[in-house]
Amino acid sequence: MCEAGKSDHHSAERCVDFPVSVVLPAGGTGERTGLQTPKQFCTFLGRPLISYTIQAFESMPWIQSIVVAVAKENMDLMTDIIQRFKHRKVRAVPGGSTRHRSICNGVLALGEEERPAVGRPKVVIIHDAVRPFVEEDFLCKIAMAAKEQGAAGAIRPLVSTVIATTSEGYLDHSLERAKYRASEMPQGFTYDVISQAYQRCSESDFEFGTECLHLALQYCGTNAKLIEGPPTLWKVTYKRDLAAAESIIKETLSRSACVITGGLAEAVNLADALRKAVGALDMELDIVPDLMGDNARCLLKEWNFIQVSVSHSCLSEVEAILVALEAENRALLHPVVVIWVHFSRTDELPVSERAPTAITELASTAKHRNILIYGIQLKQSKVMLLSYISHLYILGCTHILICIGINVPSSATKRMDRNFKSSVI
Amino acid sequence: MCEAGKSDHHSAERCVDFPVSVVLPAGGTGERTGLQTPKQFCTFLGRPLISYTIQAFESMPWIQSIVVAVAKENMDLMTDIIQRFKHRKVRAVPGGSTRHRSICNGVLALGEEERPAVGRPKVVIIHDAVRPFVEEDFLCKIAMAAKEQGAAGAIRPLVSTVIATTSEGYLDHSLERAKYRASEMPQGFTYDVISQAYQRCSESDFEFGTECLHLALQYCGTNAKLIEGPPTLWKVTYKRDLAAAESIIKETLSRSACVITGGLAEAVNLADALRKAVGALDMELDIVPDLMGDNARCLLKEWNFIQVSVSHSCLSEVEAILVALEAENRALLHPVVVIWVHFSRTDELPVSERAPTAITELASTAKHRNILIYGIQLKQSKVMLLSYISHLYILGCTHILICIGINVPSSATKRMDRNFKSSVI
Repeated sequence: MCEAGKSDHHSAERCVDFPVSVVLPAGGTGERTGLQTPKQFCTFLGRPLISYTIQAFESMPWIQSIVVAVAKENMDLMTDIIQRFKHRKVRAVPGGSTRHRSICNGVLALGEEERPAVGRPKVVIIHDAVRPFVEEDFLCKIAMAAKEQGAAGAIRPLVSTVIATTSEGYLDHSLERAKYRASEMPQGFTYDVISQAYQRCSESDFEFGTECLHLALQYCGTNAKLIEGPPTLWKVTYKRDLAAAESIIKETLSRSACVITGGLAEAVNLADALRKAVGALDMELDIVPDLMGDNARCLLKEWNFIQVSVSHSCLSEVEAILVALEAENRALLHPVVVIWVHFSRTDELPVSERAPTAITELASTAKHRNILIYGIQLKQSKVMLLSYISHLYILGCTHILICIGINVPSSATKRMDRNFKSSVI
Repeated sequence: MCEAGKSDHHSAERCVDFPVSVVLPAGGTGERTGLQTPKQFCTFLGRPLISYTIQAFESMPWIQSIVVAVAKENMDLMTDIIQRFKHRKVRAVPGGSTRHRSICNGVLALGEEERPAVGRPKVVIIHDAVRPFVEEDFLCKIAMAAKEQGAAGAIRPLVSTVIATTSEGYLDHSLERAKYRASEMPQGFTYDVISQAYQRCSESDFEFGTECLHLALQYCGTNAKLIEGPPTLWKVTYKRDLAAAESIIKETLSRSACVITGGLAEAVNLADALRKAVGALDMELDIVPDLMGDNARCLLKEWNFIQVSVSHSCLSEVEAILVALEAENRALLHPVVVIWVHFSRTDELPVSERAPTAITELASTAKHRNILIYGIQLKQSKVMLLSYISHLYILGCTHILICIGINVPSSATKRMDRNFKSSVI
């Protein structure tokens, strides 16, 4: 069984060495939230819920394509979201009148892929657009089990006792909680099993059925493997869930950052060391040479940027990030943090002494636009031993811990642990 | 069937003309939230979750007493909460090692009431401390059905499909969702049924059982009446639910206010008219003559205060509220709003003209302490036709609509409707 870590794309890719695609039924009208906007299109920090879900799948390199099935009236909205948030692996197709019809449309679309490089998938993952918190290691387990068994699904313990009622509204009997589970998403199927199940199932299944695992069992004789998932698999169902989702998204956003290296070897080494250090703290880093082309998606995803400059650096690198951030209107609702790490030779004059006024002005102007700039000067001394810990309170409610360390001595590690624990909410 | 409105204590009292007491098992350790504090003791806006739940029951005059069963290590904390938030109908008793043992201890305690005026209840309501949003009309239905049938419980539709698993972790079968329901709280029993059920049940029931309705069926032959409840019945289970609970509490807090009348007839009439007007908008008012004695609990419960002054009023009434609020440290986290309604005779000089500097100073000092003072001058003209609408944005996220009207003309009602709709989030 694959035991890939959450942020470890490489081991997941080693496990999942077959093509996997995703179908997201998103035709729901959101009536249970009591809101006019369907809940998958509700916006958090300037981004619709469905875009967070798509982003979670897109960030896994072993997912080759994603099909979203949306109601006809929301097709334009969905197309706009795909363009605006630079989603690259996604196609929108028309949903059906029921959940099963929408999923079926998505599966059919996977069989008619237009891009020649993308073949028919071996495994199809089915997930809900309103479950934005899918974790890579768990998805990897589902994909592997689906390939081996034909079908696999996430389960969770029951939160409430389940009871059977009489037709008059009285208690008939209660189920023994230990014997039953709640069936959740994601689920995985081989392409053959899920497409056959939909070819063979009845009109009544399409109309009233809810459970894909049941169709695989009934029409293909496939007993799905059930895997217990984390509590984050929950589905945004009621209005109160929107507040819960927002709190998790905020917490998640301050636990990742984008490091811009300029492609220089010293900066890349530093970024790699940094990634290792923060990985232990359940933080993730995107490391990119610049914010051009495909890397521009970081501008839409991250709230924290670390620009690493090596020797003879000047303000223009930071200025370029600010221009890009402002072009995307990123800091409208919540502050964006930019940390400028200047990695200098011993004999070099620090930028703060070379151009003190320019830095102050840049930071002050940016602050008015809700972008907070912090600077860190790292001197390369004769022993390559650097450690720096910075707590930055972001969004007023949570924090980011930046630990830059190469051969961090144990005393610094202890300090880091202590600081970190004391600042956990 | 009782159809009492949410805020209409009088019709609920007419329906429930028998003694009702409540048992709140609160011995849980909150391990599923991933927090150190058991979730019933987590604090929102300066008040622990369990205190909101207790307050919901205390505000219903037909509930005679509440027993909370808490773990021994939390007994001091619970006693402190009862004193600090001036809960009057509550006793804490030691909980047991399981949920059923805690409930059983609570039921036994109800049979040994010390206060002579409080007899053994006819109906016992069992509820969770971590479900703070119990609504009076629904609780009334449960109490009535429990008295008639011996037992009654809240149900909700299933959010996920329920499946049975094989011992090897494969899908055995899925249940037809329409035939089953989730069993929720509150539940109600006649005292005789619930106490007999606990006398007769086995050690294994005490240890592994979860469902009180099941015990009533098995040991007393009582088929519980099942009543579909509102979505607000949900239970705070995971960490994310704390954010959801906070969002609902914030919304709720800005939908109620405390009116202080000074006991004068004109002020009481005005307050009654105001209650009628805001009741239609799903807002509630506590009307009290002052904030002394038992009424001091309003200082701990409300975030909005309306002081009605009649003729020759001076600043001292408002000053008294400020002193009381500051003594309770109410405005530490979130602003408290005080609206001073001055109901004057035509020939009287407005306070704002009599002592303009004093008012400005008072408001300005209060603002520094996070208390916002607003003043409204109402002149009694020859026709007693007054209407006033004020939107006050509170907590930055929701609003309170104050409509003071005696014989509000239809044009004003229309204006009110329009204003209200446009300001609903």
